[in-house]
Amino acid sequence: MTPDEFRRYGYALVDYIAGYRAGIADLPVWSTIQPGELRAALPSAPPTEAEPFAALLADLDRLIAPGLSHVQHPRFFGYFPANAHLASVLGDLLSSGWGQLGLNWASSPALTELEELMTDWMRQMLGLSAAWRGVIQDTASTSTLVALLCARERASGHSQVRGGLQAEPAPLLVYTSSQSHSSVEKAALLAGFGRENVRLVDLDANYAMRPDHLAQLIAADLEAGRRPCAVVATVGTTATTAIDPISDIATICAEYGLWLHVDTALAGSAMILPECRWMWQGVEGADSIVLNPHKWLGAVFDCSLFYVRDSDHLVRVMSTNPSYLRTAADGQVTNYRDWGLPLGRRFRALKLWFLIRLEGVAGLQARLRRDLENAQWLASQIETATDWHILAPVHLQTICVRHTPPSLSAAEVDQHTLRWVDQINTSGAAFVTPAMLDGHWMVRISIGALTTEREDVAALWSLMREAVA
Amino acid sequence: MTPDEFRRYGYALVDYIAGYRAGIADLPVWSTIQPGELRAALPSAPPTEAEPFAALLADLDRLIAPGLSHVQHPRFFGYFPANAHLASVLGDLLSSGWGQLGLNWASSPALTELEELMTDWMRQMLGLSAAWRGVIQDTASTSTLVALLCARERASGHSQVRGGLQAEPAPLLVYTSSQSHSSVEKAALLAGFGRENVRLVDLDANYAMRPDHLAQLIAADLEAGRRPCAVVATVGTTATTAIDPISDIATICAEYGLWLHVDTALAGSAMILPECRWMWQGVEGADSIVLNPHKWLGAVFDCSLFYVRDSDHLVRVMSTNPSYLRTAADGQVTNYRDWGLPLGRRFRALKLWFLIRLEGVAGLQARLRRDLENAQWLASQIETATDWHILAPVHLQTICVRHTPPSLSAAEVDQHTLRWVDQINTSGAAFVTPAMLDGHWMVRISIGALTTEREDVAALWSLMREAVA
Ligand SMILES: Cc1ncc(COP(=O)(O)O)c(C=O)c1O
Ligand SMILES: Cc1ncc(COP(=O)(O)O)c(C=O)c1O
Repeated sequence: MTPDEFRRYGYALVDYIAGYRAGIADLPVWSTIQPGELRAALPSAPPTEAEPFAALLADLDRLIAPGLSHVQHPRFFGYFPANAHLASVLGDLLSSGWGQLGLNWASSPALTELEELMTDWMRQMLGLSAAWRGVIQDTASTSTLVALLCARERASGHSQVRGGLQAEPAPLLVYTSSQSHSSVEKAALLAGFGRENVRLVDLDANYAMRPDHLAQLIAADLEAGRRPCAVVATVGTTATTAIDPISDIATICAEYGLWLHVDTALAGSAMILPECRWMWQGVEGADSIVLNPHKWLGAVFDCSLFYVRDSDHLVRVMSTNPSYLRTAADGQVTNYRDWGLPLGRRFRALKLWFLIRLEGVAGLQARLRRDLENAQWLASQIETATDWHILAPVHLQTICVRHTPPSLSAAEVDQHTLRWVDQINTSGAAFVTPAMLDGHWMVRISIGALTTEREDVAALWSLMREAVA
Repeated sequence: MTPDEFRRYGYALVDYIAGYRAGIADLPVWSTIQPGELRAALPSAPPTEAEPFAALLADLDRLIAPGLSHVQHPRFFGYFPANAHLASVLGDLLSSGWGQLGLNWASSPALTELEELMTDWMRQMLGLSAAWRGVIQDTASTSTLVALLCARERASGHSQVRGGLQAEPAPLLVYTSSQSHSSVEKAALLAGFGRENVRLVDLDANYAMRPDHLAQLIAADLEAGRRPCAVVATVGTTATTAIDPISDIATICAEYGLWLHVDTALAGSAMILPECRWMWQGVEGADSIVLNPHKWLGAVFDCSLFYVRDSDHLVRVMSTNPSYLRTAADGQVTNYRDWGLPLGRRFRALKLWFLIRLEGVAGLQARLRRDLENAQWLASQIETATDWHILAPVHLQTICVRHTPPSLSAAEVDQHTLRWVDQINTSGAAFVTPAMLDGHWMVRISIGALTTEREDVAALWSLMREAVA
């Protein structure tokens, strides 16, 4: 493909994307195709000869689009927002077009230095002290795995360069709550701790971790000769956006020398609003933090920020230094390959740079505030409606609800819940996610798609009432 | 940003990228800015108010471009090719523009099913049997970590759901050679095996793993009560593109029940050429394979293919199943979140789909053959030149050389080598990578950038002779 062909096709694709975004509100939010349907419609073998671009473009709407679920839709209220802001789409296009490859600083000084700068801009926007240094990872799942690897190696005095976890005399333990994201247990298992060495701390009435119980568990484990190693606390849990009390937890971690990792994948974005920062009060006492600009903030996936206070330790755990990657600049520069799992790295900082510059911090703040207000508005509607219940405090943009007609048993409410969710979701008019809370189904309404306005939230509320009628 | 603004800015950016690619041959290949130079030129704090797109665009050439090293340059001969084919850039643009988020099949059926199809197209192109199933990971580093986690859990009977590696009675061992990529040791260390439990198998004269020594090590470890777990063999090592004998290694792995992971990050792409497939003969006996279409093949970074024969085992090791991710389709579909580390996933299959359709298999094959021929041509030039030596067989597109004037001692040759490499690299006219082989510096010439033609290779050869003159 020549640059001139690229120009022509690129225009056509930009048009296609502009059209997709402009018309998205008229599409059913969630795909209703059947498993295997798309695959069956596509050729099972690759083409020998090149096909024209027009053929590909024609296939997008004809074949692929029906298999899309539209998380960019203004009536997407599922999971957490997964905003791909168009400013950030442009940044990512430039990343692909330049085709830079981060292996070491020299292989793309701009890639490294803009990543240093963007993680520092974000640090300032979040109100974190200058003691933190950041890196862009792909996801919170990976960031949390890296955090637990750091914790494991700190507690074991770098066992990895000796016999590894296999030679440790007594088990290292990880503490978290049952409300932490599934990626926390996954990371602990993959890091080799073993499920039996993951302790679940009890919850308070708001689904937050109880520091008193954490302290108790630690004391008992120490007593029994086991070795507490790390705590993963969450600000903004996935089910209910509960807020683990970081300050108290940090005090306990400091007392026992445990690594504190704060998972604030969703809620971290809200820390660009000073009025939200009470939610992670005490965070300066943590060792690592993860937050996902690819969620609410609008950086196109994948863009997860991982901050550490002791970057030397991180590098010692993750580094490799083969001869073919050494350069004269090594002592003076950041080699981000030693800050995470992958060797090769994409120029991900561009998507943050475009987003922040083209929106401005004030623009980003205004949008998040709009969403918080929309959530409060919906919460106030639900609170005053008969038989509707809000199940957890609404601090952020997610509301957990049940509709419980007095005539129904608990089991019947479960069925009723799944039925009304399903009615909304299959209608295509909106999308919300069911989840379990206290052993029963509830519904999460997560506000914050880029184009979601009050009228969309009001429309959802109408749909909800119709669905239970 | 409205869709209309996106259209305008998108056109401008497409133009910018087309211009960048069209003019790239005239740029110095490697950046010569100093550490910290770019960062110092950029505002240290984020802008409060939104900036116009024009300001951003103007900054690209003015500020960022000097900090780029151009791996898309026709005279980039460093590391391994890192081709970002413009067809694949378009596929990646669509991925960003659609903003799909793979969490489970339902959250984007197209994302999952096109990934199934693309990994299957690639399987066919590579000549692998239908026993393999594939997934796109970010990098070979991650793929190899996943492979070793699978190996660990198979050998330990899924210790992760019990006491983890910490409770295993005797150490599990990983075997590889000193020529394997640094990501192999990194993966073994991160997976908790410990460096003492990574065995380095001896090499033959061509830098390939010696199966007889592998068998000896395994026997001795078993004898001593240790537990051999996995072998990582490489087809196309990073330093010299050496070829570990997969068939013999697979036989040994089968005998002892070890997991065989084949790292063919670079060379895997060459398997779309039937005449190259002898290089991984016996690969059907492996348990997992990794190859990087983001290297030579041209898929824009990041795109690493990971194939396994027992995908049920992979899923058992990697899966999580929280309530908020469950859907009605779960039993019938692939949930790729359970095939790797990250939960959220990008629509990466699009970059392969665009690349394969717009180039055709025949087009891709023709390009790779061009590069293999260029490598043979350069090798033949070097072979017949006085004092130049080729240090390892040239099976692929990488040539390892030294220039050794008889008057120089070995230590002086090291200095001489670093000097002539540096002269070429700092000239901006071409870029090659120095690396260590047998304790001394040599130079890797890695051919295969998309636009590298015979004349570029010939120009490099002139530069090399000038540099040592
Ligand atoms: C609290 C929390 N942590 C981690 C994650 C995982 O995010 P990722 O897909 O980036 O791994 C999520 C996703 O929703 C989350 O809510
Ligand atoms: C043989 C081999 N394996 C693995 C890798 C690492 O690749 P990635 O950057 O995708 O992790 C490389 C990179 O050059 C390689 O040559």
